[in-house]
Amino acid sequence: MLKRFSGRRRALMLAGSIFLALGHPTATWGQAAHVDQRSALESRFISGLSAAGYGENMKELTSRPTYPGSPFSAELAAKILARFRSYGWNAKVETYEIPYPRVTTQAVELLGPRPFKAALRESPVPGDAYTLQDKEIIEPFFVMGPDGDVTAPLVYVNFGLRDDYARLAKMGVDVRGKIVIARYGRLFRGGKVELAAEHGALGVLIYSDPHEDGYFVEPTYPEGQGRTPTGVQRGSVLQGKFLGDPTTPGYASKKGVQRLPVFSEKSNFARIPAVPLSYSDAQPLLEALHGQVVPESWRGALPITYKVGPSEAKVHLLVQHDRRMVTIRNVIATLRGSEFPDEYVIRGNHHDGWVFGADDPHSGHSAMLEEARSLGALYKSGWRPKRTIIYASWDAEESALIGSSEFVEDHLEDLRSGGVIYLNTDMAGVGSIALEGASTYSNFATRLLKDVKDPDSGLSLWDRFKLAHLHDIYAEATAGSVTGGGSASGVDFSSDRIRLGIPGYGSDHQAFFAIAGMGGLNSAFFGDSAGNSSGAYHSDYDDYEYYTRFMDPGFRYGMALAQLNGLAVLRVASAHTLPVEFTAVAEQVDAEVKRLVSLNDRLAEAIRHDDSDVRSGAYIALNDPRRPRLAPPIRPAPSLDFAPLERAAARIEACARAYAQARESGLLPTRGPDVARLNRALMAVDRAFLRSDGLPGRPFYRHEMYSPGRVWDSPPFPAVSDAMSDGDWETARKQIPLAAATLNSVADAIDEATKVLVQLRKTRGATN
Amino acid sequence: MLKRFSGRRRALMLAGSIFLALGHPTATWGQAAHVDQRSALESRFISGLSAAGYGENMKELTSRPTYPGSPFSAELAAKILARFRSYGWNAKVETYEIPYPRVTTQAVELLGPRPFKAALRESPVPGDAYTLQDKEIIEPFFVMGPDGDVTAPLVYVNFGLRDDYARLAKMGVDVRGKIVIARYGRLFRGGKVELAAEHGALGVLIYSDPHEDGYFVEPTYPEGQGRTPTGVQRGSVLQGKFLGDPTTPGYASKKGVQRLPVFSEKSNFARIPAVPLSYSDAQPLLEALHGQVVPESWRGALPITYKVGPSEAKVHLLVQHDRRMVTIRNVIATLRGSEFPDEYVIRGNHHDGWVFGADDPHSGHSAMLEEARSLGALYKSGWRPKRTIIYASWDAEESALIGSSEFVEDHLEDLRSGGVIYLNTDMAGVGSIALEGASTYSNFATRLLKDVKDPDSGLSLWDRFKLAHLHDIYAEATAGSVTGGGSASGVDFSSDRIRLGIPGYGSDHQAFFAIAGMGGLNSAFFGDSAGNSSGAYHSDYDDYEYYTRFMDPGFRYGMALAQLNGLAVLRVASAHTLPVEFTAVAEQVDAEVKRLVSLNDRLAEAIRHDDSDVRSGAYIALNDPRRPRLAPPIRPAPSLDFAPLERAAARIEACARAYAQARESGLLPTRGPDVARLNRALMAVDRAFLRSDGLPGRPFYRHEMYSPGRVWDSPPFPAVSDAMSDGDWETARKQIPLAAATLNSVADAIDEATKVLVQLRKTRGATN
Repeated sequence: MLKRFSGRRRALMLAGSIFLALGHPTATWGQAAHVDQRSALESRFISGLSAAGYGENMKELTSRPTYPGSPFSAELAAKILARFRSYGWNAKVETYEIPYPRVTTQAVELLGPRPFKAALRESPVPGDAYTLQDKEIIEPFFVMGPDGDVTAPLVYVNFGLRDDYARLAKMGVDVRGKIVIARYGRLFRGGKVELAAEHGALGVLIYSDPHEDGYFVEPTYPEGQGRTPTGVQRGSVLQGKFLGDPTTPGYASKKGVQRLPVFSEKSNFARIPAVPLSYSDAQPLLEALHGQVVPESWRGALPITYKVGPSEAKVHLLVQHDRRMVTIRNVIATLRGSEFPDEYVIRGNHHDGWVFGADDPHSGHSAMLEEARSLGALYKSGWRPKRTIIYASWDAEESALIGSSEFVEDHLEDLRSGGVIYLNTDMAGVGSIALEGASTYSNFATRLLKDVKDPDSGLSLWDRFKLAHLHDIYAEATAGSVTGGGSASGVDFSSDRIRLGIPGYGSDHQAFFAIAGMGGLNSAFFGDSAGNSSGAYHSDYDDYEYYTRFMDPGFRYGMALAQLNGLAVLRVASAHTLPVEFTAVAEQVDAEVKRLVSLNDRLAEAIRHDDSDVRSGAYIALNDPRRPRLAPPIRPAPSLDFAPLERAAARIEACARAYAQARESGLLPTRGPDVARLNRALMAVDRAFLRSDGLPGRPFYRHEMYSPGRVWDSPPFPAVSDAMSDGDWETARKQIPLAAATLNSVADAIDEATKVLVQLRKTRGATN
Repeated sequence: MLKRFSGRRRALMLAGSIFLALGHPTATWGQAAHVDQRSALESRFISGLSAAGYGENMKELTSRPTYPGSPFSAELAAKILARFRSYGWNAKVETYEIPYPRVTTQAVELLGPRPFKAALRESPVPGDAYTLQDKEIIEPFFVMGPDGDVTAPLVYVNFGLRDDYARLAKMGVDVRGKIVIARYGRLFRGGKVELAAEHGALGVLIYSDPHEDGYFVEPTYPEGQGRTPTGVQRGSVLQGKFLGDPTTPGYASKKGVQRLPVFSEKSNFARIPAVPLSYSDAQPLLEALHGQVVPESWRGALPITYKVGPSEAKVHLLVQHDRRMVTIRNVIATLRGSEFPDEYVIRGNHHDGWVFGADDPHSGHSAMLEEARSLGALYKSGWRPKRTIIYASWDAEESALIGSSEFVEDHLEDLRSGGVIYLNTDMAGVGSIALEGASTYSNFATRLLKDVKDPDSGLSLWDRFKLAHLHDIYAEATAGSVTGGGSASGVDFSSDRIRLGIPGYGSDHQAFFAIAGMGGLNSAFFGDSAGNSSGAYHSDYDDYEYYTRFMDPGFRYGMALAQLNGLAVLRVASAHTLPVEFTAVAEQVDAEVKRLVSLNDRLAEAIRHDDSDVRSGAYIALNDPRRPRLAPPIRPAPSLDFAPLERAAARIEACARAYAQARESGLLPTRGPDVARLNRALMAVDRAFLRSDGLPGRPFYRHEMYSPGRVWDSPPFPAVSDAMSDGDWETARKQIPLAAATLNSVADAIDEATKVLVQLRKTRGATN
């Protein structure tokens, strides 16, 4: 996983029912007659899943390091291929060629009177044999960053967010010509590097502060699951300009295709060099910082006084890479649809990890393989899905979601015409369910949650999810936990339905949503007591030993994830009419419009606040010479008109209600051609969220709501809010009607679906 | 200072104008004719103040350690006495005999496989010669705690607040039979020890976590003002049952009086043994704790995983004291009033420190001496105050506010009949002004703040104070800063008047307010950027070197404090009619009633919350076995009727408005007997806040609003809220009408003052 899954957030959860109940979910569809039969099928599927099998998958597939181009890489794909085939699937390997610039030289040194050289190396842990496999373990580094050799003073930038740079300016600290050091958290590391570059920094260090996933949170490994002093979070630092291979924008990285030069300006590589650090390497650098003490919320958990810098002594940052190209291998397994072979139910999880990858990705990947085994057994016994089921084991997710993105670029026409649903997992987690995805599937997802049991409590996942949203026996324990992309999922209690969160940037669903415009879900479990803080994330220590000791001993939540996603596959593949519905779409759109208005309010308030502070003379009267503050420049206050979006949202609500009424006023088609025609109309609703010309400056991102923001965050309507966050009010003003036009297309698509349904009923009578 | 001054709190400040404007403050009184003359006098007073003199005071009086019974103790009192006399005052030393059980043996040891013995010793700091005066420095210990020899497992209780014990119960951790370790902050240490005793603990360790005043906040001394690894906060741990000498409840500790036995149950000594620790001594103990990781807000800044315990290894805590009695010496200096010699304007600051005491108490004490010098010069030149001015240099404040409390007990009749105002300072601070006190003096205080300049900005103290309440260029920097007793002061913008905070427990004003029922003010400055966090507080390092390097170099804020308090003395001593006023009393009472209702809401909400969590099954469904939670017992929800208090508050408002109208509708008396009669009526308003039989269980505390809470906090209407916080709803219900009766007495007293004024005008005409 590129970055951890976005969890529910208590604050949002407690906001209560902000939407009207637009109707009651329909429990069954036209297929009421098939419930018993399918229920039996589902039971057979579930009894075919095995925790022992899950554990064997994980153990075998994580025996050696598995980054792209690793010695084990081809062998791993072959093992997965063999598994699918043995399960009865039609499986193959699809390959792409991608640049994988691996670091050849890397150094971070503090110069000056008290020199220090960072070790950039993870220490073995006693009692964990995996960590001794030194030969194949890839060194800690950032992939998709450029070469660099920089010597400059150091500045601490907290998490490296936009707000942090605004605060730095008030502290009178300029990062131009400096190297910045940021702590991990709150934003994808690629976004941190990009923001540092935009503010004029020459290089970036990103370190794991023990406040986020070290001893502050948990005892460190091997006593607990906290990050060790030498543990480093590796990762990709690519920009957010486009998805997949950073040298092939918008097309598949087949052998021999034309490419942008590696590290070139048009490519999607990071713009300035960056190195990840453990906290044992970061501490001497932080201790060398001079200047004022940082604000309280900027302080981590190291036993030092956090100062902003700059350092008097300079830091030398050196990174050099080879220019290697590697072959990546998606394993694609298929069960062909009996009735609608050109409609695709796709289930995916990546198989590449940073090192052993037990949690990331094999906790989800092992669940997927178990589903495949059980579905294969059904298939062997004669069951046939109506639609084609594709199980995909992606490569190179950690580099930049490359395997899945290249697949989407490669098969874009098929996916746009027949892509029904994409079901993603990555790290499995434990705790209450966390779901994000396309709101067309909200009712469907709620039904699934009701039908799968929570391993710990024995309640349904849905009941536990609701309890977790109403009750918090851990009080503030979750407050500081996992973040990263996506908005939180919630509960609409009035219609007893999940409010799906906006998909985050962090895993392989991205291209299916943002480029292909498919509906889908991304699922994981999420701790109620303290988040899913894994201090092994993207380190040497994310291995079978660690996973089975701390994360999900017995694989109980891994198995629940297999049940949830396997049932989802079975149900969508078996349905006549697709189980999509639109009142939740209206709700989600409305929520996103509100989120946009809130962002505007927050930005406007900050501008007014600064303005008032400056004009009052407070910057002179209250200045503490030990912590000087510079008055910010007076900025114009925004005045944006969100009415076009609000009107479009209201239209979607009306159209969704009309479709719901039409659907409930009669039976749904069950015969081939009618079903196909209606389903095409239904699929068109998710596709209608795509802008034909993509987002401003980023044409390969097409989805109006599910595309990532410019710095990989997940802002509401990124075309509008990115401009707002950059203070570019003119662009924001222009983008509002364009985003509203997209929403109106969605309303049109829902209307069209209603028309098709009504027309079909008229033509055929209510008999079929 | 027993515990740091309570600062303004942003949250309260931003609450805005919750009161109606009840009228405009009257800028001048009947004495309008005297303004020019007095203004000249005030200018002479102010030009008589000298920063050099302030510095000499501090330097000489902090040359050696000055705890009660110290070798330097008698000499210090003699020096102060000599100073007053040389300034032209009539001065004497008043002595009392008090128990000062000094520690003879003290040990804190971790037993078990990894034994550790706490050093209990502060290390000298290079470059600071004071810290080398090893012979006279008193060892770190808690005074007013009992002997003890306990061996038991250790439990971490966070700050040791009531809420912390409630959380511990949910974590399934019982402190009965254990030793608890709490970090400093949020509550007076005596309250921590008392709450630990009430919950069944056998002993208490209180340590200075670097999160509160160490490297988390500032670089440590000598690089900055943060607490050093071995720095210990000494202090008193007496209970809150009564004030002053813990063996002489309600009467002065003269030689030969009957006393409660030392450490006896009826005395006010702490009930269980306790020892203060540095964080270097605390860390190995905290590392020995087992059990679950504590909630995020419980974690300090040490580089460890904070766990709740209990420890597997036991801790041995040993404290033994001698039974010494010592003589304490208040230096009392007087300028006799020319017109109303039996009316007293009292200005006080203690002179005893824990070690050298540069900040605490000599930053305030040196200001007071400078005031005395300048007033003395005026006196020598022929000026005579109308009222008697008393400057008091208290001893043994650090032991338990003893010097000032014994003075009040000793002179109670005079104070109740003629005590006009008590003006307290202690640690001077820097930044914006912080004021707390009796609301009768709100208009008076506002006028003072307008007439004294802020050294940094050149604005008036009032303008800076208002700016600091409207603007916060440091954003959240102040959030985690100084607390301790008292409610925050604020601004009533509609009437351009200060809202005085409720006086905290922490200094010598306590007995004057809570027992004598005098009006008064407690003043200090308070940092806008990061609070007044002094890591030297009550340690070896609070010396002249540290103070002049970090706290107030050049003594600019010390001098502003002298101006403020000296002017206050001059004005009250010179006034015909006392400058008291009652619309602000109505506001403060109303605010306290609202604070009481809020407390009730918060407690009721917590009960409902628990109830709902338990009944929903959340304690079963969401329980994380790694952090188990026990369902709390279902408690009855409170149903209290605050209407009697609200009605009484409304009555005070009406009476205050009537007095204000009466006052503004004619001149005020300026002739002796009339003035005296009116002033007696005015003084009676503050006295009317005294309950004749004291607070429930604590008869020596008389003030309905300004008495400390049972555990030394400053809750609203302590007679009511202490019972509420203890869950004793029956007592709370009974106390509400009693508190309302007190408020009605206040209304009666205001009415009486109005009547006297009107009657005087009738009798004498409006001519005088």
